[in-house]
Amino acid sequence: MSPTEKRALEEGADFAPRFDAQGLIVCVTTEAITRQVLMVAYMNQLALDKTLETGEAHYWSRSRQSLWRKGESSGQIQRVLSLSVDCDQDALLLEVEPQGDGGACHTGRKSCFYRKLKGGRLVFVE
Amino acid sequence: MSPTEKRALEEGADFAPRFDAQGLIVCVTTEAITRQVLMVAYMNQLALDKTLETGEAHYWSRSRQSLWRKGESSGQIQRVLSLSVDCDQDALLLEVEPQGDGGACHTGRKSCFYRKLKGGRLVFVE
Repeated sequence: MSPTEKRALEEGADFAPRFDAQGLIVCVTTEAITRQVLMVAYMNQLALDKTLETGEAHYWSRSRQSLWRKGESSGQIQRVLSLSVDCDQDALLLEVEPQGDGGACHTGRKSCFYRKLKGGRLVFVE
Repeated sequence: MSPTEKRALEEGADFAPRFDAQGLIVCVTTEAITRQVLMVAYMNQLALDKTLETGEAHYWSRSRQSLWRKGESSGQIQRVLSLSVDCDQDALLLEVEPQGDGGACHTGRKSCFYRKLKGGRLVFVE
């Protein structure tokens, strides 16, 4: 990437998400009101388009290799309040308002990050 | 993965980070005190080991293909207050206390997520 391209990517107003070799971009999803990180997932162009079109988070399920409308079965629809991109446009950040029970994790917990490392072991914080 | 293995991964106390085919795991870094998402980066086993050993965030630079002690040149050392792992252990979350000028982004801004998408264009929020 030339210095001019780098500058456009980092300081420009053009949204130019850089999908990886698999056509995916990582997405961090936070609860808008508390700023809690709820989950990390991936989008492809289709999931991103659907997210922008509907205002509800869509991801690409790498395990199922299919479009994943978050909350379709669980009711944990994520209303998107904002979408940000990082400096080099290879990561996205969503601020959402979770619907349904307010959670995001398939294990029944609010956030997927429910374990902290302490002394070499994982301790449950939720 | 068998149901037993899945259960151990999701409900166990063993820290078993799942690095990808390139030996990397994605890491979301937040400022502990404000919960602001500062950046998204990657760790390999070495970077993770160094982070745990020193209490300071280390990443793996994919562009430079080298260990990256965050803040080594910028002074933006990240003191790690906690490290969490997500349900299927393929993403990490750090809560840090940024040193130096308190920022994390190489562009001089506090967070790498300084642009929000509005009406198809990026708007600077920092």
